[in-house]
Amino acid sequence: MTIKVGVIGAGRIGKVHAETVIYRIPEAEVVAIADVAEDAARHVAETLRIPHVTRDYREIMADPGVDAVLVCSSTDTHTPVCIEAAQAGKHIFTEKPIDHDLKRIDNVLAAVKAAGVKFQVGFNRRFDPTFARVHQAIQSGEIGDLHLLHIISRDPAPPPVEYVKVSGGLFLDMMIHDFDMARFLVGAEVEEVYTRAAVRVDPAIGAAGDVDTAVVVLTFANGVIATIDNSRRAVYGYDQRVEALGSGGGISTANVYPNEVTVSTGEHVRRDLPLNFFMDRYTASYEREVRAFFDAIVHDTPVPVGGPDGRVPVVMGLAARKSLQEHRPVRLSEVE
Amino acid sequence: MTIKVGVIGAGRIGKVHAETVIYRIPEAEVVAIADVAEDAARHVAETLRIPHVTRDYREIMADPGVDAVLVCSSTDTHTPVCIEAAQAGKHIFTEKPIDHDLKRIDNVLAAVKAAGVKFQVGFNRRFDPTFARVHQAIQSGEIGDLHLLHIISRDPAPPPVEYVKVSGGLFLDMMIHDFDMARFLVGAEVEEVYTRAAVRVDPAIGAAGDVDTAVVVLTFANGVIATIDNSRRAVYGYDQRVEALGSGGGISTANVYPNEVTVSTGEHVRRDLPLNFFMDRYTASYEREVRAFFDAIVHDTPVPVGGPDGRVPVVMGLAARKSLQEHRPVRLSEVE
Amino acid sequence: MTIKVGVIGAGRIGKVHAETVIYRIPEAEVVAIADVAEDAARHVAETLRIPHVTRDYREIMADPGVDAVLVCSSTDTHTPVCIEAAQAGKHIFTEKPIDHDLKRIDNVLAAVKAAGVKFQVGFNRRFDPTFARVHQAIQSGEIGDLHLLHIISRDPAPPPVEYVKVSGGLFLDMMIHDFDMARFLVGAEVEEVYTRAAVRVDPAIGAAGDVDTAVVVLTFANGVIATIDNSRRAVYGYDQRVEALGSGGGISTANVYPNEVTVSTGEHVRRDLPLNFFMDRYTASYEREVRAFFDAIVHDTPVPVGGPDGRVPVVMGLAARKSLQEHRPVRLSEVE
Amino acid sequence: MTIKVGVIGAGRIGKVHAETVIYRIPEAEVVAIADVAEDAARHVAETLRIPHVTRDYREIMADPGVDAVLVCSSTDTHTPVCIEAAQAGKHIFTEKPIDHDLKRIDNVLAAVKAAGVKFQVGFNRRFDPTFARVHQAIQSGEIGDLHLLHIISRDPAPPPVEYVKVSGGLFLDMMIHDFDMARFLVGAEVEEVYTRAAVRVDPAIGAAGDVDTAVVVLTFANGVIATIDNSRRAVYGYDQRVEALGSGGGISTANVYPNEVTVSTGEHVRRDLPLNFFMDRYTASYEREVRAFFDAIVHDTPVPVGGPDGRVPVVMGLAARKSLQEHRPVRLSEVE
Repeated sequence: MTIKVGVIGAGRIGKVHAETVIYRIPEAEVVAIADVAEDAARHVAETLRIPHVTRDYREIMADPGVDAVLVCSSTDTHTPVCIEAAQAGKHIFTEKPIDHDLKRIDNVLAAVKAAGVKFQVGFNRRFDPTFARVHQAIQSGEIGDLHLLHIISRDPAPPPVEYVKVSGGLFLDMMIHDFDMARFLVGAEVEEVYTRAAVRVDPAIGAAGDVDTAVVVLTFANGVIATIDNSRRAVYGYDQRVEALGSGGGISTANVYPNEVTVSTGEHVRRDLPLNFFMDRYTASYEREVRAFFDAIVHDTPVPVGGPDGRVPVVMGLAARKSLQEHRPVRLSEVE
Repeated sequence: MTIKVGVIGAGRIGKVHAETVIYRIPEAEVVAIADVAEDAARHVAETLRIPHVTRDYREIMADPGVDAVLVCSSTDTHTPVCIEAAQAGKHIFTEKPIDHDLKRIDNVLAAVKAAGVKFQVGFNRRFDPTFARVHQAIQSGEIGDLHLLHIISRDPAPPPVEYVKVSGGLFLDMMIHDFDMARFLVGAEVEEVYTRAAVRVDPAIGAAGDVDTAVVVLTFANGVIATIDNSRRAVYGYDQRVEALGSGGGISTANVYPNEVTVSTGEHVRRDLPLNFFMDRYTASYEREVRAFFDAIVHDTPVPVGGPDGRVPVVMGLAARKSLQEHRPVRLSEVE
Repeated sequence: MTIKVGVIGAGRIGKVHAETVIYRIPEAEVVAIADVAEDAARHVAETLRIPHVTRDYREIMADPGVDAVLVCSSTDTHTPVCIEAAQAGKHIFTEKPIDHDLKRIDNVLAAVKAAGVKFQVGFNRRFDPTFARVHQAIQSGEIGDLHLLHIISRDPAPPPVEYVKVSGGLFLDMMIHDFDMARFLVGAEVEEVYTRAAVRVDPAIGAAGDVDTAVVVLTFANGVIATIDNSRRAVYGYDQRVEALGSGGGISTANVYPNEVTVSTGEHVRRDLPLNFFMDRYTASYEREVRAFFDAIVHDTPVPVGGPDGRVPVVMGLAARKSLQEHRPVRLSEVE
Repeated sequence: MTIKVGVIGAGRIGKVHAETVIYRIPEAEVVAIADVAEDAARHVAETLRIPHVTRDYREIMADPGVDAVLVCSSTDTHTPVCIEAAQAGKHIFTEKPIDHDLKRIDNVLAAVKAAGVKFQVGFNRRFDPTFARVHQAIQSGEIGDLHLLHIISRDPAPPPVEYVKVSGGLFLDMMIHDFDMARFLVGAEVEEVYTRAAVRVDPAIGAAGDVDTAVVVLTFANGVIATIDNSRRAVYGYDQRVEALGSGGGISTANVYPNEVTVSTGEHVRRDLPLNFFMDRYTASYEREVRAFFDAIVHDTPVPVGGPDGRVPVVMGLAARKSLQEHRPVRLSEVE
């Protein structure tokens, strides 16, 4: 039996996930793709030989032959699409964040629970070989009990200011990944958040009400203290690293480079810049997260990144923003 | 117009190349696959939805709808298959080595020339991002005029002795890749070879008439001196590196690792071992070489690794073997 | 003319500084050494051929032939010794911290100012070649305007609890170095401090009223946000690194190792542990700071680490402690 | 009892060794220094407070109070000075090479043997922490049985051509260090040498009858095959590394840098160049070799680098030169 899949959203990430299903998941098949930009959907469908194309994702919901959907449409549509998919009894893989509003997220989670379908959130970085190896080291006790964690997460360049205005800002569109990473690596829940942030990269970001440079301190229930360091612009490329200290040792990670070449000249010993584009840096993770989603369906096991994993980082983002506004540490319970 | 492709040989590399054509080369389509082990061919065909399967590659040769063939069968079949393919007017991508016998190679090259078809030899390492970057640095003058080159090439474990007996031995089945790499990076022809070698890894390899540990010094027409260091067994994994010194600088490369994690314990600061399997290490290169072959067909441009590139490393391997036997430097002209 | 030097304190650091003067500073000469443990002083004097030994540092103060003193006695004696030395008109190099009490520090600085003598505080890490290079990069604009700084500073093992009880605790005996480093690298003053800390390494440290694991966020007047990560125990060795992000690039530093060897076995690719002992790690810095002190005397130029540089880190330590106690960000002006 | 030491030669290395004895070897004392350039000797003596200065080293030989001599004069004087020192019953530490002429070396070794004095040759690189660690790894079996060794040894810039004319050329003035390193690391004797070399750096070196770029293959009695890669000019600095492969693992070493800083800009991820000057690169080794010499005297134990260790590399250099001239592998027994 092959799992029949509908893809909602034919943008960059929708296309990547569709390719993964088609080329890498023998147990699944993409039977339809929907996008309000029908031309985009049609183009992807032709390239990937997807039989059905539509402007209206509701056609996919209405098709009883579709077993699962990949929700890759814009963030503001995630809630209604996921609720409809749950009500239609389809397993759901949705891009993150589920939503910026906790009440709407709760509605999604309630619908998913009522329907008894699988629901996975696309925090792909957990599936990156490097971060997965850090997770393994921490969980296996390779460095003893974890004491400190430091996450560096910097984009090569800021997004358009128009995006910043609707994205929920740095804490919800960018640091949300690091909130997830922190929870994933520490294996416990955060109790309190403290934020220092500034506008250093682009005044237009400040004018739009956001920050572009931020440090957040997280205090976990198990005593771990973590820091997250975000910048909208690292001129040398996409900078994605973590460091951990435990009672039995430490871990650090390096960035990923396009090659393993070092050139020594009369001036420097140098490497080419690290990978610049997140889809190059995290290529393997996209395939692995989709693979894990279908494994959970095939074997009827829990998904690795479920509803609460999609909800908590939004709570953390709201708390981080509140901490910045009120200039004090904020407990997560305050924003619930 | 889509290029119709037949794949000869349904083993490991045949499957990889077929996947590349199917998933990554929109301009081409795999229409048939042949293998004397018909079950293997059938299995690959089913997985990849290749319409035609056969025991007999001649069916592919006889099909006027086939434009190009990928020759992935055992080495001893390359010569007849390539000659037949050329005579049938099909473009040819063949795995290396073309053959162990220079006269047979010459027959292939003559048939290809007479037919006017594209003929590319599968020296995939040229397409590895790291070695391609070294090539670029040398050719662009980034390190000035090249003086010295050192190639380290070590397998994680020796092949079965049965393989060694028919493979042509270390110089023709293993170092041949390094001979190609040396020519590729230096951009000139070798004039003389000197070999020192030993049996250090497994006496059974010696009993089979081969060596498992070897150093070869190459002298190039442009004055570059290169050394190649081969071992059948590096217990820490697949060790594939080069170093170059030029008048304006130096280059060195590192191995490829499964992750970018460093763990520090009370005993060591350590990394996991480098990739162990050549198909993992060189994944990108297989796709890129096939991409280049079809680019040459589509744009009717020269292939990047042509007939002479397939022939000269065999000459070098024969000269290296002769140098070992006669315990003296041997000029390539002596084995022509 | 040779500068005549008296050394107060014949412990580990007193001996190191005496050796530096004797072997590396041709313009100076150690004429006397004092220690309440007279045997220790006598032993050092014999080894280094220092002509005069005394239990009572006041003998050195009273000697009009002494031009400069190196204050290497226990922290609680720094204030009276420095004040007496200033009143005796001697140039002063004192180990850090000057004192734990701001009023006493102010008395020292007043005495020094009144006497017009040179007064340098022993924040040696500024003279470490690696951190000096980071400073140069930041000050020269090599990475543009500084946005973020992260300091990792971890000891290989905690000090005796008895020491913790009198040292002023982690913020005054350990992080004080990092406060100095932060000011040195950022080149601006700190306005606010926020602390999260815990007892993770040894409950006895907690019982003594201190913490052993701490993260501090510093906000600078020029907008830079810095974090300091301290632990009393990194089992892999002395971990001393910084990272900086600026508008034009980033900087990171590595630890110092006893050799440059990497061993690859069937299990790991590994290095020996980094240097474990602070006097090995910072060897070069001790010599360079003393060299700088005598340069300032010889050329009558300002010392590189003066009175305010000795005072401000104590203010920061007090603010960090207050932030921990009151669980809120604290401005430095609150503890003045 | 203090060992009384005379230093012959007040050049760069003579001064370094004198400083080591004075500052680092409490059991020894420099009582005299000799140099035909008496002003140089006088200058060093004043700086280091050496009581006796002379133009004529024979004064030192004649002084019965001198127990040991450090022979740091020009290479052509080593033989007569060492023979006279042996005849005067003084322990001898001599810079390498002992001589370029095997018969003269044999005369030195005979004189030393007859006198029963300690005789150590200054192959300092054995005492470098990095190469000593490689030696330890190989000798302790950390990488199993050694199969292959590769030595990279490149100077930052060629010496003056006048020096090349009298130095014995690249094989005797530069590669001699690498011959010693190969013997030291492999722990066996070389049987055969094969050389490829060229003039690539400076035609004037060729005009003087020497080469500036060379690769030598060494075959050891225990089956190890080693290669040495020499260049008179690596524009990025002093390049001194080794690589080894054994049955149980591999070793590689990195160069030594002035700091541990990596800077990432919009163009590169880069480090400053490695140390450029051999006396900076090998600082620790000079002190350690002299320390070892005096330990051998104090404890009456064998010196770590004795007469045969001084002689064999000269044999290897002569064989390497003969191999280049005759374009064939040469056994060491041919040049004895």
